[in-house]
Amino acid sequence: MSEAARSDGWSRAFAPASVGNIGVGFDLLGFSIDGPRDVVSVRRSGGDGVRILRIEGDVPGARDLPLEAEANTAGRALLELRQAIGAGFGFDVVIEKGIALGSGLGGSAASCVAALVAANALLERPLSRDELYRFALDGESVSSGSRHGDNVAPMLLGGVVMALEDRMIPLPVPDWLWSVVVHPDQVLHTRRAREVLQAPYSLHDAVAQSRHLALFLTGLQREDRRLIGEGLRDVLVEPRRSSLIPGFDAVKAAALDSGALGASISGAGPSVFAWFESRDLADAAGHAMQQAFANAGFASRCYLSPVAGPRSESLPATGVSA
Amino acid sequence: MSEAARSDGWSRAFAPASVGNIGVGFDLLGFSIDGPRDVVSVRRSGGDGVRILRIEGDVPGARDLPLEAEANTAGRALLELRQAIGAGFGFDVVIEKGIALGSGLGGSAASCVAALVAANALLERPLSRDELYRFALDGESVSSGSRHGDNVAPMLLGGVVMALEDRMIPLPVPDWLWSVVVHPDQVLHTRRAREVLQAPYSLHDAVAQSRHLALFLTGLQREDRRLIGEGLRDVLVEPRRSSLIPGFDAVKAAALDSGALGASISGAGPSVFAWFESRDLADAAGHAMQQAFANAGFASRCYLSPVAGPRSESLPATGVSA
Repeated sequence: MSEAARSDGWSRAFAPASVGNIGVGFDLLGFSIDGPRDVVSVRRSGGDGVRILRIEGDVPGARDLPLEAEANTAGRALLELRQAIGAGFGFDVVIEKGIALGSGLGGSAASCVAALVAANALLERPLSRDELYRFALDGESVSSGSRHGDNVAPMLLGGVVMALEDRMIPLPVPDWLWSVVVHPDQVLHTRRAREVLQAPYSLHDAVAQSRHLALFLTGLQREDRRLIGEGLRDVLVEPRRSSLIPGFDAVKAAALDSGALGASISGAGPSVFAWFESRDLADAAGHAMQQAFANAGFASRCYLSPVAGPRSESLPATGVSA
Repeated sequence: MSEAARSDGWSRAFAPASVGNIGVGFDLLGFSIDGPRDVVSVRRSGGDGVRILRIEGDVPGARDLPLEAEANTAGRALLELRQAIGAGFGFDVVIEKGIALGSGLGGSAASCVAALVAANALLERPLSRDELYRFALDGESVSSGSRHGDNVAPMLLGGVVMALEDRMIPLPVPDWLWSVVVHPDQVLHTRRAREVLQAPYSLHDAVAQSRHLALFLTGLQREDRRLIGEGLRDVLVEPRRSSLIPGFDAVKAAALDSGALGASISGAGPSVFAWFESRDLADAAGHAMQQAFANAGFASRCYLSPVAGPRSESLPATGVSA
């Protein structure tokens, strides 16, 4: 049991927001950002189940989250963890939502990652991040309906991560890479965002996407901004989803006009992210991107972060009460 | 003018066969092999054009190649080179075909690459390989109808190369990687091989292909045989073309049963290639793959080569006559 958890039985951890997927790596690549975060407190209970005691936070969607453990991403992840390790105890959980649901920033994923990292500190033999991954996939699937790791993986490891079915592969990230994520006050039609992807794709576009992905990965590996920029172009998913986000074209143009290496939709949207080769460029671009959303009639929040963003970590467990 | 070319006015060069594409990198990735090769001799002529004096070699298809420079991959490449550098002379060309046409081993591409490398040695200011690339694309397009560099790029640089529209990016290749290429005595229906690719692709397959490509590139970078093996799986093109190659399934199975990291179609086929983590494994697998083709009724040739295959080079220009 970790130092943080010892005082009053509670263990507390945060998980950062993340952008998954990164345009060209649909269902494959994500990165974490130093922006909004979910915080989850967990303590052992005498029971044999998982109880969600409260969900706090006034971000959009927080009040609609289920308290039933099976149906909650954090609850489900802890149920799977319990079962897998044969724990002789249950968990009580308090969730503080900081990431808006339906923002495209991994709000559902963050709760289960933070819960796992908090609970892990309560185990006699804590698991590695790699071992926690499958429970995070279990949890996240409650919300998305399928096992996609492009949000939970960067939350667990930080930075840019390749999320596979059974493991995570962290990728090298140049320290001069900065991101901007702008989250507009829009309600995204998530079902529609999935539906538009179903019609099939041409060989031409599939090959172009492969070429871009190869350039992107090689660019990261070689810290080559030209390759990263040439690669960060999603020709499969973005063209079908962009019209679901009012103002997207203008916001992307604002990012590119401000020197972005590339820009695309964060997750299913409506957030938009862009990558830059310095903090200063990113900062200036963030204002321009927000202005473009404002011109389209939408207020927005802007997050500036190194692309090598933080990973989920334990926090001091002060002030938690049942 | 190079030493090799000085004696009698002829400059001579070879280009190796190549596998383009490498399964998962359609129209993007190729590698050269130490196997059959085309040899081209070039000398300056007093005229202002390019004359193909002879095409030698008794490999399949050689006799059907056009002597008209515009319609010949070597001739066309040299015409474009002449024009670009404003040469005050023409070229005479003798082609010795060593790579069968329609084999899937880059036979058309090799003639133009060898011609360019031979002609380049005759220039006052020889060009770099990178500068020769666009002329190779010009030449190869005569045969394929479009500009694809996945054969000419590895012939120009050797090893595994990412072929883009405007440049080549050589990729790192572990020195323990060996390839087997087996070329059966089959006539491939090239038009059909292109036709079957036209129907559109599902999101599921496009995403799986991206995942495999990412694993493949990361595996090469990290010299990780597991990642290379997981990545070397073509779910887009191979499933549609494999039925055009009688015996393919058995040959691929023989490769995998013999320890191949992966196996797929070389080019449009009918050749089949496989990658191995040692020369010994490759050698044994080659026999098994040939046996599988034999069981299907086809004699075959087998080439064993490091994946880091050779690049086109100059040769002594002995014995060439007009």
